[in-house]
Amino acid sequence: MKATILNIGDELLIGQVVNTNASRMAQLLTQAGIDVCGTYVIGDNAEDINHYLAHCLQRSDTVLMTGGLGPTKDDITKKCLCQFFGSELYENEEALANVKRIFSARGYELTPINRGQAWVPRCCTMINNVLGTAPCMWFEQGGKVVVSLPGVPFEMENLMATEVVPRLVRHFRTDQIVIKNILVQGIGESFLSDLIEPWETALPKNIKLAYLPQAGMVKLRLTAHGRHDDRPLLQQQVTEAVSGLYSLAGQYIVGEDMESLPELVAYTFKKYHLTLATAESCTGGTLAQQLTAMAGASEYFRGGVVSYCNEVKECALGVKHETLEQHTAVSEETVREMAEGVRRRLGADYAVATTGVAGPTGGTPECPVGTVWIGIAGPDGNVVTRLLHFGDRRAQTIERTAFAVWAELIKLVKSTHKE
Amino acid sequence: MKATILNIGDELLIGQVVNTNASRMAQLLTQAGIDVCGTYVIGDNAEDINHYLAHCLQRSDTVLMTGGLGPTKDDITKKCLCQFFGSELYENEEALANVKRIFSARGYELTPINRGQAWVPRCCTMINNVLGTAPCMWFEQGGKVVVSLPGVPFEMENLMATEVVPRLVRHFRTDQIVIKNILVQGIGESFLSDLIEPWETALPKNIKLAYLPQAGMVKLRLTAHGRHDDRPLLQQQVTEAVSGLYSLAGQYIVGEDMESLPELVAYTFKKYHLTLATAESCTGGTLAQQLTAMAGASEYFRGGVVSYCNEVKECALGVKHETLEQHTAVSEETVREMAEGVRRRLGADYAVATTGVAGPTGGTPECPVGTVWIGIAGPDGNVVTRLLHFGDRRAQTIERTAFAVWAELIKLVKSTHKE
Repeated sequence: MKATILNIGDELLIGQVVNTNASRMAQLLTQAGIDVCGTYVIGDNAEDINHYLAHCLQRSDTVLMTGGLGPTKDDITKKCLCQFFGSELYENEEALANVKRIFSARGYELTPINRGQAWVPRCCTMINNVLGTAPCMWFEQGGKVVVSLPGVPFEMENLMATEVVPRLVRHFRTDQIVIKNILVQGIGESFLSDLIEPWETALPKNIKLAYLPQAGMVKLRLTAHGRHDDRPLLQQQVTEAVSGLYSLAGQYIVGEDMESLPELVAYTFKKYHLTLATAESCTGGTLAQQLTAMAGASEYFRGGVVSYCNEVKECALGVKHETLEQHTAVSEETVREMAEGVRRRLGADYAVATTGVAGPTGGTPECPVGTVWIGIAGPDGNVVTRLLHFGDRRAQTIERTAFAVWAELIKLVKSTHKE
Repeated sequence: MKATILNIGDELLIGQVVNTNASRMAQLLTQAGIDVCGTYVIGDNAEDINHYLAHCLQRSDTVLMTGGLGPTKDDITKKCLCQFFGSELYENEEALANVKRIFSARGYELTPINRGQAWVPRCCTMINNVLGTAPCMWFEQGGKVVVSLPGVPFEMENLMATEVVPRLVRHFRTDQIVIKNILVQGIGESFLSDLIEPWETALPKNIKLAYLPQAGMVKLRLTAHGRHDDRPLLQQQVTEAVSGLYSLAGQYIVGEDMESLPELVAYTFKKYHLTLATAESCTGGTLAQQLTAMAGASEYFRGGVVSYCNEVKECALGVKHETLEQHTAVSEETVREMAEGVRRRLGADYAVATTGVAGPTGGTPECPVGTVWIGIAGPDGNVVTRLLHFGDRRAQTIERTAFAVWAELIKLVKSTHKE
């Protein structure tokens, strides 16, 4: 069973908004065993909407559309759907009650333009959007299904997870997919590929392997496809494949079924009942933000200091004035005192620290843009430091510094707390 | 002149990676006056690559592809391009020298699989990728252009900005586009739409208006299209349109040509030579991260504290133990002491603070998940506080809290430092 995703919106097309809807929708569909075979982004343009709706319907069993459902003039999706299915708009009672409820909860008066949100094509099944005023619409034609969803990410996500995906699974008897992610670290993509080549060649035909290189690591994704009633067999196949991978490359495997290094940090710290603190200069809060983006961070994360100027390094982290004077802010000595300072002051088992020149300006001949020191302080008071060199791309330097910090931290914790 | 974007990769299709390439490419093309008429994401699948390459070429003057250029088995783009253009691979000298340079700089040995990165179709113009091993390839057919780029975001971006877009502009004499963004705050999308309806209806036909609602604000985007030699006229049209908008909705306009509230904060603080500090509980470093993601943050941002447990609120921010005991961590009193504490300790003019229950667990009947207090401390020592209620979606609560903080901060600074 195949699905296509059709995201409508000029803001997506010209790149002012990153299309996170496509990835989130694809995740939810994939988890439910529905194969996504293509994603299309088009503008708020009737001709294109019509053309791609037909194209997607031809290519797949279901088309999931987002966007163009707002109350303003540039939102034309409903009109296009009426034309496509030869239907006309009517005011849906349940949708109107929902719009009224939302407006009264916010203390706003219902204007005619907003009342228009409750109009839907006669030929569709209206699915109520409890989180917003744009209703979700379900169309059927020749056994195939078209669903139009609002483009607001959390409204779309709630509708997809609670209504649309369950209905799709009931409507089509979908194939099963089993996915397994393996995080690999300390070996480049091509060397890994050489190493595991015999294993890869011997994988069953229904298991697909993908390399997803990320800064500081490679994620291997195994995807097993099978029939509706084959789930146990698929799971067994995947388990066997993974154990084969361990025997070839086990020394490089740092985690399973995790999407990112911060997730692995959280898992490791909770597992060993350890606590963590952060002291950030060049990463500017990114380390703390990555940890606290995940629920349950308060179980192991005590807090952090973003020391964006020298005075804060001194007053909030206890870095010595002489250290900053003698060695400058971007130095091994400073990162060492930052890491140990925050660990002690915030009472954590481990602490990580970063200081560097993220750029694009601010470099000197001795300390060019992209120079970064990281430090990891452990429970024994020792600090492991590393000097890194990146280029002048600020966002990349911040991202890669964070990856390096997490990788070093995991290495240190794992070597200290052996199983 | 029209462009299509074709992003290849199973990881994009199943949603494990958000397709930021599409938005970044679209931004660069749009800025150069090249209209993006569609974006397609397809898997690492020869049939699809072939089909969509033909489809995109039919639909647009240039097709910009990314992905599938790695050294591993699942990367098949080069093979597909050979087939499509009836060409064959050969080892390109310049590309090989680049691969060798990169491997020797990293201290790695060049394996045969990596040497294969230097092979490109004979019929293409090889564009050297100085940041990575996958070369960029430029194909021409019947006046149209196909460019294949690596999928690694910073490699793609560097090639697009320095090579591909300039070559496209030279190859095609492109139309002009003038874009203007206006940030509006304190009025909902539909009320704004009612308010500016007469102005919108009277806009010249070549100016398109888009509403881009975001948490806490609406971005209005005006896009004016015109001929190659019409730029001054377009700019004048846009200036006139903007002044018409001011006369109708000026009181709600908070900024121009800015993409986000943090950008507006940076602009405002630099303009008035003010400094800022942050104290974050439930936003966990997001405020600091948003500020420091932008170059030049050290001009106004002194630093911040992420106080993810009560002890850190006391020791690093000076929140009184009795305050936490009597009023709990999520209270007006606590956020007040956090804001003023971090402002004084870090020596800033203004400070912002957040404390709340981001969820999805950790709520109580008195303080349910989604309850957030924010505080803005000013130079006079006064703290403005606000109580916010969100739902149980952690990421959304964090994002919306940040928006609310920036909006309140800008309001306070603007009212204090009038022009």
